[in-house]
Formats: sequence, structure tokens, C-alpha cells
Amino acid sequence: MSEDAYAELRRGAVEVLLEKDLGAKLARGRPLRVKAGFDPTAPDLHLGHTVLINKLRQFQEFGHQVMFLIGDFTGMIGDPTGKNVTRKPLTREEVAANAQTYQEQIFRILDAQRTEIVFNSTWMDRMSAADLIGLAARQTVARMLERDDFHKRYAGGQPIAIHEFLYPLVQGYDSVAMKADVELGGTDQKFNLLMGRQLQEEFGQEPQVVITMPLLEGLDGVQKMSKSLGNYIGITDPPGEMFGKVMSISDTLMWRYYELLSFRSLGDIDALKRAVGEGANPRDAKVDLAVELVARFHGAAAGGQAREEFFRRFRDGGLPDEVPEVRVPAPAGRLAIASVLKESGLTASATQAVQLIGQGAVRVDGQRVSDRKLSLGAGGTYLIQVGKRRVARVTIA
Amino acid sequence: MSEDAYAELRRGAVEVLLEKDLGAKLARGRPLRVKAGFDPTAPDLHLGHTVLINKLRQFQEFGHQVMFLIGDFTGMIGDPTGKNVTRKPLTREEVAANAQTYQEQIFRILDAQRTEIVFNSTWMDRMSAADLIGLAARQTVARMLERDDFHKRYAGGQPIAIHEFLYPLVQGYDSVAMKADVELGGTDQKFNLLMGRQLQEEFGQEPQVVITMPLLEGLDGVQKMSKSLGNYIGITDPPGEMFGKVMSISDTLMWRYYELLSFRSLGDIDALKRAVGEGANPRDAKVDLAVELVARFHGAAAGGQAREEFFRRFRDGGLPDEVPEVRVPAPAGRLAIASVLKESGLTASATQAVQLIGQGAVRVDGQRVSDRKLSLGAGGTYLIQVGKRRVARVTIA
Repeated sequence: MSEDAYAELRRGAVEVLLEKDLGAKLARGRPLRVKAGFDPTAPDLHLGHTVLINKLRQFQEFGHQVMFLIGDFTGMIGDPTGKNVTRKPLTREEVAANAQTYQEQIFRILDAQRTEIVFNSTWMDRMSAADLIGLAARQTVARMLERDDFHKRYAGGQPIAIHEFLYPLVQGYDSVAMKADVELGGTDQKFNLLMGRQLQEEFGQEPQVVITMPLLEGLDGVQKMSKSLGNYIGITDPPGEMFGKVMSISDTLMWRYYELLSFRSLGDIDALKRAVGEGANPRDAKVDLAVELVARFHGAAAGGQAREEFFRRFRDGGLPDEVPEVRVPAPAGRLAIASVLKESGLTASATQAVQLIGQGAVRVDGQRVSDRKLSLGAGGTYLIQVGKRRVARVTIA
Repeated sequence: MSEDAYAELRRGAVEVLLEKDLGAKLARGRPLRVKAGFDPTAPDLHLGHTVLINKLRQFQEFGHQVMFLIGDFTGMIGDPTGKNVTRKPLTREEVAANAQTYQEQIFRILDAQRTEIVFNSTWMDRMSAADLIGLAARQTVARMLERDDFHKRYAGGQPIAIHEFLYPLVQGYDSVAMKADVELGGTDQKFNLLMGRQLQEEFGQEPQVVITMPLLEGLDGVQKMSKSLGNYIGITDPPGEMFGKVMSISDTLMWRYYELLSFRSLGDIDALKRAVGEGANPRDAKVDLAVELVARFHGAAAGGQAREEFFRRFRDGGLPDEVPEVRVPAPAGRLAIASVLKESGLTASATQAVQLIGQGAVRVDGQRVSDRKLSLGAGGTYLIQVGKRRVARVTIA
């Protein structure tokens, strides 16, 4: 494997454990079994989720086998105490429906021919209580309490139910059952990923290589992308919306997204960075990224159309090359548009803001605001224009 | 149920949880299902084990159903890590053989017609990993770490394997599967016994009453009776040995044994105590207890014979009514007979001790010592005579 190819596999990863094991496995030249696990409950993916899926795709491109694991066994258990009604167990039909939705979404990125969709219920449904006790004997309470979230909860007097100690063991055993060579996961999954290494060794297998990927920052560039924070780009967002959201991010965040979301090579991206360093307009690089992402999820034609549409809107709206960035606090989680305008300095007062909205002079992400009761959610970043001259990229924090 | 009968059921118990629940269950007049669990590995019982079995017998005498539970499920798992070779898993054949030995021993105390021997593998072998996760969800890590031994080990940095948290849940679930009304156990089992109460409630059953029995003191009257300490009376000990061991205990310990081991009523025992208080020889009460215990395990004739034999020996040996008690330290766990004689003051020196042994003048528990290399184990109490005049009850500590 060339140095460039290895650099691509390593690209964006926070840790590779152990780097030498990965080298040894690759050196053998046979296709590796690359595992990543996904929650069976929430198949509504955003770009944050695709960081992992993109990495799976890279392995695929280098000829390896991708195993997309849906953790349905625990999903079908739900909350065993029945106390938590929001976590009610999934039925087998719901799991199947969710898996279908996953497939529709991930095959915009992955090659269906080289992807195995696997369900851990396949082996876990057959596991006996005695076998699970055997697994549980392989880890200590103290070691489990070292896991960050468990440690905090235990120290803070918040209850941890004992079955929560069993789930990392189940996840680790999945690697044994799947004979995984590599497992990918977010940095928050590191503990569980390493459990796979340990259990594989104890079951006489070569331990998997663990690759942790960062949690992608949302549009605000600070907090991790998440639906509940509202700072996300959903992979089913319509082309125009997706394009506009990409255009709203800061230049710094743009390079981060290039690294973790673009399929362009590291060499290409370096060239782009150099060009911007030498005076090229970063907005053009952002447009290219937006086009690439829209094309990935909506097809090549949609990418071009979204660009056209965006430029048409902003030409009419008069978007300058340099847009100032402003942060406005929203203690209650949302902020009325009039307050946003006043707090960001785009208007002198809330009253003036309301007048200007009435005159149709205010645009958010290129779209004219007609409802003066509109409010913007915290976590989002919005391109706000007032008339032709005043414009700012406003992050509601 | 009369007050006297209730006092008998309550006799010797450390705690009854909850006393009012026991009252309510008894008041219904139907036979109760009374559970006690036993280790499948060590069917070689001593009188310490019979404290529980005697209590089961009492319930039986009041018309209740006894369930003698052999915890073979966990015994057949052994040490799941395979690291501990001393705890290798039992085979089904070994469990069956051990159960047979148990039966031979316990039916000297219990009525076989009203005793069910049950194995928890019956339901646990059928339990799935998912069901066990469901059980584990019903208890928290913090609550489990409150258990005395876990707390100490965790605080002391000693490892606790996670499956050790599952065993109390299995024991608790046994009560659910058995629909137990009452569970008996040693005071060291209180945490696990209460787990049964909790799980039964969560499974919609009336919670069992928990009765904890004390751990019987061994012959030294201080440490709990145990094989490894050597301070025990095995229920398969030959009649003469059993009789002699009972005769070697202190008067205080004798009343304790009366309470926990004798089948004589509380009223009878009180009368005996009063008589001794008024000048009767406590040795006679001890003889009665020894006869009762030998008769229980070897038949009525053996009880009488053992008494005859004992008196014949000690009459020849010249045992006085008052025997001084002496404690001799044995830092290495055992002490040579010559040192015992010297340290207890029975001889002036070890050299003199050796001479007297050579002359056949030394007896231990009524038996002449011929081997001057004999050593006595710590934890034991021995009646030692030198010639006709010198005698002491010596505890090796």
C-alpha cells in the first residue's frame, strides 16, 4: 500500500490502536473485515454520522469488506425495567423498517455490492444467560467504572443499572462473532471499541484495530452536530437547504468539513488551501464543497442546480465577498428575529427591525422573511441580510 | 399458631424481615414454601450447616413445605475466565453425585416426604442472555457496591469481576422461579436474600420473608465453625469423636449449641438452665446434648454407647468435675504436643513432656498419645490429661 493511500486511510482519524497492527493486517494483502455499529432506533442521518460512513467507504475503495452492524439486539430489549417509556422496545418489524431506511441513506455513500448489513440479534438471540455470565467474568467493575460517563455518574450519585455494564460486553462480543479486523467508531466509543480488542484476544482471535473518528462540529463550529441542537445538515435535507447551510459555515470549519466529508484527495485539498492562502476567494472553495455534498445525496444535476439557485438569490440579495461574523446569545434556546437583528447590530432597534421586515428588506439564508414572529434556534448559524448593504453571518449561541 | 410455636420458629434467628409479613403468611393457614440454598460443591456437612437445616425442619414440623435448593447453575459455570483452576466447573454427573451425598446427610434431619430437592439449572439453563439483561436492569451498580464484601474489595482495589454482580440476581430470581414464601440463610447472605424480596415484588409476587440465622461458632467458641479452621464437628464424624468434641466445649458455648442445634423445646432448655443455676452439674447437660447429637446422626443406640464409652475412658483417666481452660498460641497454625504440654503448664518442660508421652501418661480427648511427633491444629479445643491429676481443656489459638 502506497504512503499516499495509507495517509488517506489515516485521514481525519483521532487514534489508530494499534497503528502497527493496522500495518501488519494491510501488509497481508487480503481484504479486511471492517465493522462499524449503528443504533437501530434513529436512521435519520446527518453529515455527522457520515464521517464514519465515509471512512467505511474509503476502506471499500481500497478493496476491503464493510460490515454495517445494526445493534438491534439491545434495541429490541429497550428499557428492561419498563420505567422509561421513551425507550420502549423496538419490534422486529420496526428494526426491519429502520434497516431499510438506513440502506436507502447509506448506499448514497457506500457500494452496496461490498457492504454486508448485519444484525447482532443474529448471534445474541441465541446467547444463553450462562454464556453472558461467561462474558461478564472477563471484565472488572473497577475497569468499567473507569469509562468516562460511568465514572461521572457514579461519582455524581446518579444511578447506573447493572445491565449498562453488559452492553459494552455485547458490543465487544459482536467483534468476536463478526471476526472484525478493524472497528470504526466515534471518540466517545473508544472504551467499547477496545472491549472488542480484549474479547477477541480472549477468544483466541487476532485483536481488531480500533480507529476513532472525531465527532463532527455542527454549523456553529463549536458544538457537535446534532439534531437536538439544530446545528445539523440532514442527508435528506433538500438541495437548496443543504447548499445554503454549507455556505453559512466559517472558513475554518470549511477546511474541517473538507477533511472529514469531502471525497477529494488530501493532495487536492492541500492545493485548494494553498490557492486560498495566495489570495483565491474561500467562498469559491465553499461553493465547491456545497456542490459536492448536494451531488452526493441528490445527484450531480442537483448539485449544479443548487449552485445556480444560490447565486441567483444572493446576487439579487447583494452578498459581499467579506461577511462579518457575529454571535448572539439566546438564553431561552430561541430568539425572535427582531431581537436577532437588534442584538447583531444589523438594525438600530427591534422596532426598526419589525419595520424593515414589514418592507420585505430582511433575508435569512437568502430567503425573504415575511413572518415577523419568526424565531431562530440556538446552535444555528444564519446568513442575514438587511437591504443590500447590511449583512452578517449570525450564530445564535 | 400459638405464641410458643411462633417463639420456636423465631428461635436463634438474627433477623426476620419483615416480621409482620411472616405473621400475615402464617395467619393464612396454608403451608408455606420455605427455601434455603446450598452450594453444589461441598456436600460434606458439619454442624454449622445444620443450623439452617434444623430451621427448615422446624418449618416442616409446623406443616410447611421445604425446598432444598442446590445452586448447580453457577457451579456448572465454574470460573468462566478459566484462570482459577481450583474452581473448575462441575459436570452434571458431579452435581448429581453431590446431590446424592447431600440427601444422605440432610435426611438425618429433614423428613424426606416433605422435602423437595430443586436445582436452579432447571430454570437458569433455559434463561436467555436477553432475560438476564432484563434482570440486571433491575439493580444498580451503587446498590451492589453497598454489599459488604464488594464494598471492601472495591475500596481496597481488589478486582470484582462483573459476573459477580449477576450471581445475587440469579439467587434472587431463584425465589421468583420457586415462588418462595420464606428464605433462610446465614447473616452473610442477607443482601442476596433481600434481592429475592425485591425481584419477587417486581415480578408481581408477594415478597418472601427473609430469616437470617447466625454463623455457628466452632469448638473454640470464637471463630465460626469451618473445616479449614479445624474447629468443626462433621455430621459424619464417628460417634466417639462427635461425643468427645461436644464434651470439649465450654459451658457458655453449650447453651448456644442447645439453642441452635438441639431439638429440645425452649421450655425444656430453660428448665435445664435453671437447674444448673441452682447447682446441677453442667457436665450432665453437656452429656445430654452430646447424646442427642450422636443419636441424630448415628441412631439412638449409638448415642447411648458413646456416652458409656466416654465415661469408661474418663473414669479410667480420672477426669475431675472442674476442668481449667487454657489458651495456647500456635503462630504457625499447628503446635507439637510437647510444646502444647509445656505452654499450657501441664508439664514443666518440653523434655519432661516427651518423657511422659513415652511413659503413656498423656491423653488427648481421652485417647492415649503414643506418637510424640503428634501436633494439634489451631482452632481446636482438646481435653488433655497428664497422669491422673493434671488435666486442662486446651484451646490452640
